Amino acid sequence: MNRNLDVGHIVSLLKNVLKKKDGLIPLHQPTFRGKEWAYVKDCLDTGWVSSVGKYVGAFEKKLAEYTGVEHAIAVVNGTAAMHICLKLAGVEEGDEVLLPALTFVATANAVRYCGGIPHFVDSDWKSLGIDPKKLQDYLKDITLIRQGCCYNKQTMRPIKAVVAVHTFGHPVDLDPILAICEKYKLVLIEDAAEALGSYYKDKHTGNWGKLSAFSFNGNKIITTGGGGAILTNDLILAKTAKHLTTTAKVPHPWAFVHDEVGYNYRLPNINAALGCGQIEVIDEFIQEKRTLAQKYRQVFKEVQGITFFTEAAYARSNYWLNLLLLDEEYVGLRDPLLLATHEEGILTRPSWSLMHKLAMFKECPRMDLSAAQDLEQRIINIPSSVGLGEK
Amino acid sequence: MNRNLDVGHIVSLLKNVLKKKDGLIPLHQPTFRGKEWAYVKDCLDTGWVSSVGKYVGAFEKKLAEYTGVEHAIAVVNGTAAMHICLKLAGVEEGDEVLLPALTFVATANAVRYCGGIPHFVDSDWKSLGIDPKKLQDYLKDITLIRQGCCYNKQTMRPIKAVVAVHTFGHPVDLDPILAICEKYKLVLIEDAAEALGSYYKDKHTGNWGKLSAFSFNGNKIITTGGGGAILTNDLILAKTAKHLTTTAKVPHPWAFVHDEVGYNYRLPNINAALGCGQIEVIDEFIQEKRTLAQKYRQVFKEVQGITFFTEAAYARSNYWLNLLLLDEEYVGLRDPLLLATHEEGILTRPSWSLMHKLAMFKECPRMDLSAAQDLEQRIINIPSSVGLGEK
Repeated sequence: MNRNLDVGHIVSLLKNVLKKKDGLIPLHQPTFRGKEWAYVKDCLDTGWVSSVGKYVGAFEKKLAEYTGVEHAIAVVNGTAAMHICLKLAGVEEGDEVLLPALTFVATANAVRYCGGIPHFVDSDWKSLGIDPKKLQDYLKDITLIRQGCCYNKQTMRPIKAVVAVHTFGHPVDLDPILAICEKYKLVLIEDAAEALGSYYKDKHTGNWGKLSAFSFNGNKIITTGGGGAILTNDLILAKTAKHLTTTAKVPHPWAFVHDEVGYNYRLPNINAALGCGQIEVIDEFIQEKRTLAQKYRQVFKEVQGITFFTEAAYARSNYWLNLLLLDEEYVGLRDPLLLATHEEGILTRPSWSLMHKLAMFKECPRMDLSAAQDLEQRIINIPSSVGLGEK
Repeated sequence: MNRNLDVGHIVSLLKNVLKKKDGLIPLHQPTFRGKEWAYVKDCLDTGWVSSVGKYVGAFEKKLAEYTGVEHAIAVVNGTAAMHICLKLAGVEEGDEVLLPALTFVATANAVRYCGGIPHFVDSDWKSLGIDPKKLQDYLKDITLIRQGCCYNKQTMRPIKAVVAVHTFGHPVDLDPILAICEKYKLVLIEDAAEALGSYYKDKHTGNWGKLSAFSFNGNKIITTGGGGAILTNDLILAKTAKHLTTTAKVPHPWAFVHDEVGYNYRLPNINAALGCGQIEVIDEFIQEKRTLAQKYRQVFKEVQGITFFTEAAYARSNYWLNLLLLDEEYVGLRDPLLLATHEEGILTRPSWSLMHKLAMFKECPRMDLSAAQDLEQRIINIPSSVGLGEK
């Protein structure tokens, strides 16, 4: 087969869909077309720019309304959100947490912030997230339940939680994972950093986990500059999350009493103002992203050896970051394709390096990761900004 | 003595200085009168709102120029800055860190984030910061040096660092503290969260510590909404700080490799844009704050039983948060005065609760804290915003 020809063909198809002219096409850049300016300027005009201010509460309310999750606590970024989710799930020094090897490093880092041990599990070709069947078989082999707690028989450490990542915005198959969590006494946390606007069955992601973490980084579907949120349907957890992220200060008009080690994690008002403007137009954003995904799908349908990844039957995805999957015989084209697209000013990227390959996590426990290993070789993310999907 | 009369008198003096009309006078609110809006709008217009963007670098450059410290790394807040300073000072699980009991909780929390043990030391009436003489005597008693490392003889844990806090912006007496650090092989870190614009002798604070942490929270002399910075004259530490705060990602145009457990701590561009506008007018801010301090000083000079705190002879303070100190026989007036000022719409506050009194730190090692205990009873912070000091 002529590999050079193939790379050139893929590049020309991408240029076509993206109507490429001069200049760079980033992977994902923000769009501001709502009331962002007005809200941000209001912060400056009134002097309310910091973490006490009306936009923080307003943004939290809009997040809760949009997702249907009862409580939202806005924080400085998705990593902070995941850190607090894990703490509230009870993850402590030496506890293991199950999470996919195929994820952004923040998921695993947040486990370490709690003193926990990431325990890596394999992914599913259909969702790019945790493979429920494989997880079920694995837990049956390696765990024992004692006094209502799950232990890893090999390490004798408690296993506390499962973090289900909605990879690139595509919902993982939550129902079987939730069933596994119930059976094995594990707390389900959704890493929905990339999944605002993505639905699993009839409900928005974030409604299955006891807690979930969202991100509004500059590359996400909506952005607050930097920002994130903890979502939960549990009032007590919501109150604790707010307390912990507000330096665990006991409310008082002037006294400074803090009742546990807390965090300075609350989202500033100016960032929340941006978020309010953004979330008001998210429906438009998703429509345009789905239009773009549809175009990619059409164009790549006829290309042998490469597949545009589409949502599972149970899902309605925000198509946050689109991706192509190379067929097995073409994995050697990944790096030439990355290089060729970058040379043409079309920014693309490969999968994250799998977590168990990173120096700091290589000793962590893991199951067979053959699907993740395979996916790692085949994934190429392609430009996905809102606006690219306008007709 | 007639206590009610005294409280009323103090309130009327405050009202006088503050030209109190209707509405609340906060303790410290931000002022935007530079190019803040132009810079923030530029972020929205160009779509660069997140942690990659020109204002982050520009703000870091301005911070370095203004303070004379060679390198500045902008982060999400002062707590994150202190966390990274402690990590870079080598603080690990079980290490002790000396810090004043009289400080904001973030200083002690950041030690815990590293797994370290806060070890509380007493304060000095002249600076409100660490008492160098008392620290020297204490370390002579409780430490031993073995193979170039300092150990607490009682706990046999390593003591790694001293965090010198510039309380309310007033520089602590750094030279003797630095000498102690050299003698006892301790890393000096400056907690300069409140001290942007404050000078010790001929140089800006942040130049004595191996590392220092600054804050640009909404209540600080300049604000980025939420924000902070790590400052250091050490190039290697600066590079490591930037790496650690950028999720320890190894730079590459597309590959995602992270070589240690890192943090998502970089300041977003939109917040840095605000900071650029603010720091350009900081000289005006300091002038107005010093004018306000001068007014307070004049007015309270003639009042028996209460003293307006002024900078030490070696210092030029930014007078970030002004304070009154009650004489010993009047400590009972503190709470009535807090209540009366709040009722009049003049926001005031007492000292932070001393760290060793908080539930999570009460078992931590500490020296005799009699000066801090005394100060805690006597401090009342009073309104200090820029603008209150206009002629």
